[in-house]
Amino acid sequence: MLVYLNDRFVPAGEASVSVQDRGFRFGDGVFETIALRRGEPYQWAFHMQRLEAGLAALRISFNTAPLLGICTELLARNGAESGLLRIAVSRGVGSQGYLPLSGNTPTLVVETLAPAPPPAAPVELWLSAYQKISLASLPVSCKLAQGLQSTLARMEARDHGCFDGLLLDARGCIAEAASANIFWLKRRTLYTPSLECGALNGSVRHAIVKLSPWRVKEGSYRLPALRRAEAVMITNVAYGALPVGGLEPEEWRWESAEAAARVNDFLRLHAA
Amino acid sequence: MLVYLNDRFVPAGEASVSVQDRGFRFGDGVFETIALRRGEPYQWAFHMQRLEAGLAALRISFNTAPLLGICTELLARNGAESGLLRIAVSRGVGSQGYLPLSGNTPTLVVETLAPAPPPAAPVELWLSAYQKISLASLPVSCKLAQGLQSTLARMEARDHGCFDGLLLDARGCIAEAASANIFWLKRRTLYTPSLECGALNGSVRHAIVKLSPWRVKEGSYRLPALRRAEAVMITNVAYGALPVGGLEPEEWRWESAEAAARVNDFLRLHAA
Repeated sequence: MLVYLNDRFVPAGEASVSVQDRGFRFGDGVFETIALRRGEPYQWAFHMQRLEAGLAALRISFNTAPLLGICTELLARNGAESGLLRIAVSRGVGSQGYLPLSGNTPTLVVETLAPAPPPAAPVELWLSAYQKISLASLPVSCKLAQGLQSTLARMEARDHGCFDGLLLDARGCIAEAASANIFWLKRRTLYTPSLECGALNGSVRHAIVKLSPWRVKEGSYRLPALRRAEAVMITNVAYGALPVGGLEPEEWRWESAEAAARVNDFLRLHAA
Repeated sequence: MLVYLNDRFVPAGEASVSVQDRGFRFGDGVFETIALRRGEPYQWAFHMQRLEAGLAALRISFNTAPLLGICTELLARNGAESGLLRIAVSRGVGSQGYLPLSGNTPTLVVETLAPAPPPAAPVELWLSAYQKISLASLPVSCKLAQGLQSTLARMEARDHGCFDGLLLDARGCIAEAASANIFWLKRRTLYTPSLECGALNGSVRHAIVKLSPWRVKEGSYRLPALRRAEAVMITNVAYGALPVGGLEPEEWRWESAEAAARVNDFLRLHAA
């Protein structure tokens, strides 16, 4: 397997960055994970827009124009048909402390990742003790290389036998799962937290908002809204829409399989 | 210059980590920056306690016992007398997504950093638009490799000609500067935000709380408390206590030089 690193293709085992890279020191960067459909990156334009939004928010000067050519060649060289493409851009080497010097050269890493086995559906969520980091604190609607909260919340969920954690914001409004967006169905309307609640601008979320045959409402919703839902699902580029069976320790249960299957159907239809 | 990487001394220019290291992917790690006094690490026990607290919060299994020997040898080999020692531990390579697999091998990086030239005092602070990440969201009292908020707030301050940013928490209480703790003097009492406000458990902050000849009060304070202060200073392992001349855009001014000098005097006295 090859990795594209800065300006060349290198064997994955040799792809490394300086310990002084601000990506390693501070998580000072952004990334994208892009689904592959028959060897082609899916929702390319959306991913480039989000990447550029993240780079602008972090003020990293980086030209995304060559990425499509680089990714196409990497996919061909690795013979990657399915799974994910991962593009990471860090601010690169420079300055000991938080304040970056001007003129850092960003670090680019492009990898192909094998498809992860989908979890057994439906999945269980754990109501996390971690409060979702606010959009007032960081541009969390972009994919920042600041994954610690998601890591901690997923470990917490695993401790309780659950697949993922459900995070609320400081007001007690639903934000998202630790590694996925969340949707719920009630009377032929799909509800999802708005980005102002701290949700990631996820690629599957974006596709659902654009393509759903059901009406989609984005807003600020508290837990009782979820309790009254007819079906709940979480969405992530790695698996599309996953039905949620329950929320622990609340012991709320849903029959979500049919609604999630319908969402996956219209996403597949669009991708075809 | 040598860097200690995992289990050996390597030239700094060759010290690199895999692009799959969770430190680079997600900022999934912790670090310490330790002052050197005549070639000896200062406040070693404090730094080890904070490092161990961070490792425990992140659930990274790592034995800190060999670190003193490693650091002592690195200081000798690099002939480092002043400046900083930087110890970073990431969760290492393993798992594509946020959830770590069990059995990751942590990555250890120990570096010596040259002393940074101290900024011209007194310094100006900028009242940041970024809301300090809450202790309810992440264990921010430890030095997490999640430096993006500090980076963004320092760039914002620089835009306005200021040295550092002042961050408030979601309640509007003072938390800290983007790269320093904050103290202010009023009627022979030093005030500083408590860790519950999102402040780092800083090493200089710790020394002041323990050693100050003035009484120290930790608590939740809003901006008017700062306005009424007689002197304001920010504290950081790289420079001790720095006098603050003003807060912009509020146009509040302080004469802080004498108070900061007195704090630095008693810190030096203790270190001697």
